Amino acid sequence: MNDDPFAADVTVIGFDGDDTLWHSEDKFASAQEWLVDLLAAYATDADALARLQQIETRNRELYGYGIKGFTLCMIETAIEVSKGDVAVSDVERLLATGREMLARPVELLAGVAETLPLLADSYRLALVTKGDLVNQESKIARSGLAGLFETVTILSEKTSDSYLELFRRLKIEPEQFVMVGNSEASDVWPVIAAQGWAVLVPYPLTSMHETGFSRDLSSPRLRTVACIDELPALVSGAGGS
Amino acid sequence: MNDDPFAADVTVIGFDGDDTLWHSEDKFASAQEWLVDLLAAYATDADALARLQQIETRNRELYGYGIKGFTLCMIETAIEVSKGDVAVSDVERLLATGREMLARPVELLAGVAETLPLLADSYRLALVTKGDLVNQESKIARSGLAGLFETVTILSEKTSDSYLELFRRLKIEPEQFVMVGNSEASDVWPVIAAQGWAVLVPYPLTSMHETGFSRDLSSPRLRTVACIDELPALVSGAGGS
Repeated sequence: MNDDPFAADVTVIGFDGDDTLWHSEDKFASAQEWLVDLLAAYATDADALARLQQIETRNRELYGYGIKGFTLCMIETAIEVSKGDVAVSDVERLLATGREMLARPVELLAGVAETLPLLADSYRLALVTKGDLVNQESKIARSGLAGLFETVTILSEKTSDSYLELFRRLKIEPEQFVMVGNSEASDVWPVIAAQGWAVLVPYPLTSMHETGFSRDLSSPRLRTVACIDELPALVSGAGGS
Repeated sequence: MNDDPFAADVTVIGFDGDDTLWHSEDKFASAQEWLVDLLAAYATDADALARLQQIETRNRELYGYGIKGFTLCMIETAIEVSKGDVAVSDVERLLATGREMLARPVELLAGVAETLPLLADSYRLALVTKGDLVNQESKIARSGLAGLFETVTILSEKTSDSYLELFRRLKIEPEQFVMVGNSEASDVWPVIAAQGWAVLVPYPLTSMHETGFSRDLSSPRLRTVACIDELPALVSGAGGS
């Protein structure tokens, strides 16, 4: 609609990577399932998962996000929950699980491969992601999408300040930027607080460290879509290029 | 000397972080010593270290550099060298060793605290480091030096391309940049290949993954100093500001 002011002045579209452009959380979920099975003799599924989440939270400042820290936390959880009774061979399998997660092929989400080249014709694209530096770079390279992005930014946390820094670097005003991602905490609220726009594309599996995070999802600066292929109509229909 | 053309047009000084501005390798060395002691019943010191180095090398593409990957490699080494006989309590201690390394206070090297503010008066300073994103950011914040740097860049590998990208971002020509660091592989040769200048400040403990790396240290684009406090005379004496 031409009288809809959403993202009317946007020139740069920012994309989150994990669970927005490519699958990520499903790997964590299956590793967690395996850990829970491993610890079935010592704790209920819910208790084992709660302990893992506690251990991830208490190590967050040291480890940040990403698979390496997650692997260290799985090992720590296995030892703690089993009170040291876990077999060394199982620790070895947890290490192997982490390596398999890091090496796993990049699987794009539905609509990504078709939609991003379309958007790149009319907008500057920026990838804004967080996690392990090496693993993120590797996934970007393997995604086949790297050439579409003017800039790639890998952050330890996505805050309003980090978005403002990005706007300065790209020499744009906040209202010229829309962020597309699956995470309210990382991709929506800090961008809106920085006076940009946001499009939420929910991922079926919500990350454990984000459960419980909930705010009123209505903001004139936010739209929610089910699939990334709705983006071109959403931004151009709003009065963009 | 005024007729010495070294770094005559430099406007930006780049600094490596680990083992150039603050101690890092000494933590790895003491963790390795502890691992070697732990494995004394299964392997000689030299064999245990060699196995660790092999495991680090084979995981490098997945893990990159940094303490989290190193911790995972220590655990893998302990299990492999002991053929699964290592105690789970020792795995727990290796996890704790990694966390202690990540949490350890930042200790600046001699001369750094005095020299960097001096240089910041006349030059733009850039920090160019590699390793775990979260750990590097944390060390920069705790170093007390963050305010001196115009830009902070954390890379997975330091290549000529990554330096050229930095030159573009800083809007400088290669001859306007001198890199100061302790690593030939990261701080010297890729910069010189990109037509910049380099100052090597050797660190007493050479990183394991760099032993065996050796080239002719004579280049008109390279100087070697024993302490970072020699820098102001070296660059200004060369005809700079």
